[in-house]
Amino acid sequence: MPQSLDALIADFEAGKSAALARAVSIVENHRAGYDQLMTRLHPNIGRARRLGITGPPGAGKSTVTNLIVQSLRRDGCRVGVIAVDPTSPFTGGALLGDRVRMESVALDPGVYIRSMATRGSLGGLSARTAEVADVLDAFGFDRIIIETVGVGQTELDVARTADTTVVVLVPESGDSIQTLKAGVMEIADIFVVNKGDRPGADRLRNDIELMLGLRRGSTSANIPAHHGVSLKTFNPIRVAREAAKNADPAQWTPPVLGTIASRGEGIDLLLAAVDRHFRYLEESGGLKGRRRSRLRNQVTEVVSERVRSRLWGDSGTVAWLEGQLDRLESGEATPFSVADELLRRSGPLLTGVGA
Amino acid sequence: MPQSLDALIADFEAGKSAALARAVSIVENHRAGYDQLMTRLHPNIGRARRLGITGPPGAGKSTVTNLIVQSLRRDGCRVGVIAVDPTSPFTGGALLGDRVRMESVALDPGVYIRSMATRGSLGGLSARTAEVADVLDAFGFDRIIIETVGVGQTELDVARTADTTVVVLVPESGDSIQTLKAGVMEIADIFVVNKGDRPGADRLRNDIELMLGLRRGSTSANIPAHHGVSLKTFNPIRVAREAAKNADPAQWTPPVLGTIASRGEGIDLLLAAVDRHFRYLEESGGLKGRRRSRLRNQVTEVVSERVRSRLWGDSGTVAWLEGQLDRLESGEATPFSVADELLRRSGPLLTGVGA
Repeated sequence: MPQSLDALIADFEAGKSAALARAVSIVENHRAGYDQLMTRLHPNIGRARRLGITGPPGAGKSTVTNLIVQSLRRDGCRVGVIAVDPTSPFTGGALLGDRVRMESVALDPGVYIRSMATRGSLGGLSARTAEVADVLDAFGFDRIIIETVGVGQTELDVARTADTTVVVLVPESGDSIQTLKAGVMEIADIFVVNKGDRPGADRLRNDIELMLGLRRGSTSANIPAHHGVSLKTFNPIRVAREAAKNADPAQWTPPVLGTIASRGEGIDLLLAAVDRHFRYLEESGGLKGRRRSRLRNQVTEVVSERVRSRLWGDSGTVAWLEGQLDRLESGEATPFSVADELLRRSGPLLTGVGA
Repeated sequence: MPQSLDALIADFEAGKSAALARAVSIVENHRAGYDQLMTRLHPNIGRARRLGITGPPGAGKSTVTNLIVQSLRRDGCRVGVIAVDPTSPFTGGALLGDRVRMESVALDPGVYIRSMATRGSLGGLSARTAEVADVLDAFGFDRIIIETVGVGQTELDVARTADTTVVVLVPESGDSIQTLKAGVMEIADIFVVNKGDRPGADRLRNDIELMLGLRRGSTSANIPAHHGVSLKTFNPIRVAREAAKNADPAQWTPPVLGTIASRGEGIDLLLAAVDRHFRYLEESGGLKGRRRSRLRNQVTEVVSERVRSRLWGDSGTVAWLEGQLDRLESGEATPFSVADELLRRSGPLLTGVGA
């Protein structure tokens, strides 16, 4: 390491931005020192509010983000932005006009903007985004905004790591509201219909209200993110049953707001709704629940990564598997018998006891 | 189980299509009996040729697929189609006209079409697609076509499970060829510029040729899919170095073909190129390599799933983790210390020895 971890942490705790950038890089890429760094930062995590902003491409997420950042800055908040969106101006993927608009924010020392590489990280993207948010949290940012394009399961999982998730839609989404990924609707704590001056904006708001009305009572607006595992086997019927069992009269109903972000209209109401949702989370215990859920997910992720690196980082195990390929090809062994045998012989490796 | 596994397998081996549909469902969803079923089918896997068809939405992948299926049927081949594309007419997500065109194929008893649910399967989608292809293979289909929209890492991994991958582009992709996901270009064994009568088709073909020329010698057209693990930590520099080391004068250079699928033009040449690539794979040992790589990936997937279900399917482990959340919240423990402790105490569980 070119700089010792202790020196890095000292600089980090002194608020030096170069140390922040280095810490984020180490954590994002799980470079050498990542475990120790996160362990050292751990006690300082948990103070920032995390806001997720998601929606289809072209909905104006970045403009909304930009306005939110400006408003939070006027209130004296320090803001970290994590862009997990290859089309975001924050990641350089957009029109020049957008990029110029972002610059006022990008040059403000009270704002830190980081884009996450989406390639090659696969299922781990949401875990790494949450960890980068942890680093920003430990550095002392008051608000962390996670901007992600709502196109796939991975992106939904990223949005789910926030305390409050804002789904930005535009009237053009109206016709396709039935076909919008169900998950996008389910993770929304607040809906924003942007470009509210365009035809169809009112109808879209009505459609969303209607859909929320249909769902109310039958299912919960907030799907419990439980163990990482169950996200993969998400069962809407079970969630609906659980929601009915735990029916709470004070349950949060996502408001459906309108904005015209290009003119800055509606952002104050949006921020007020974000604050209201945060208070709701605090009072209902949901905030604690979301934080515990993040910790639970982080443990399961670390466990998976440990298992993967202990098994496949071990040349003996890799060589043993190579030696089984002939038997697999001939049909003498099956992937199941080989996997079971591999796990049987890997006890000390997996538990880290004999390593 | 409503029907015993032995009866199902007997019906499957007798070629009954209801048994095929049930077997695919069991495997796709990893339902009860999945291990035993795959174990029983294992010796019959490995005869079918697997063709991947990928590309951006709107490139005409389904029309190309449809024509390929018709042509293969004329040659007497039995064809299985796996559609991993929510916008494909095969999965019901397209225009009526497209759907009508597909019907001639869909009603042919020598063709089996199956769409894969893309929601909720996360990183495991490519593994499950490969397993469904294994089932079709064991059932006796001569050709298996895997159609997937080339938008994300997950979809690239799906395409990578085929023996031969065709990337379909349209002139409209021309301007953005620089920005096309690098992975899409790297997995192509054959390029097809569809809608070849549109302006820009020649330029796109030239651009692709140019790009292939630049790459030739510096890196391999076929990135070895190695251990699943290394896909996640794909290192282009290392791949280039390896390619230089193993430089093979008879290396496959992806042909760049033109089609006008709406008029059926160019499909014969495409099929000839597919056959040529298959012969190349057979002669170069690449076919054996791809099959071994699939087996290797399958073992690593089964291992991951075993670890996940043994740990998180164990109520004692889940309860133990819940008991650590207070310590995690207070900062007394970190996700790393908890993960390590969890693995230390889970030896018998993980190895399956004490279970």
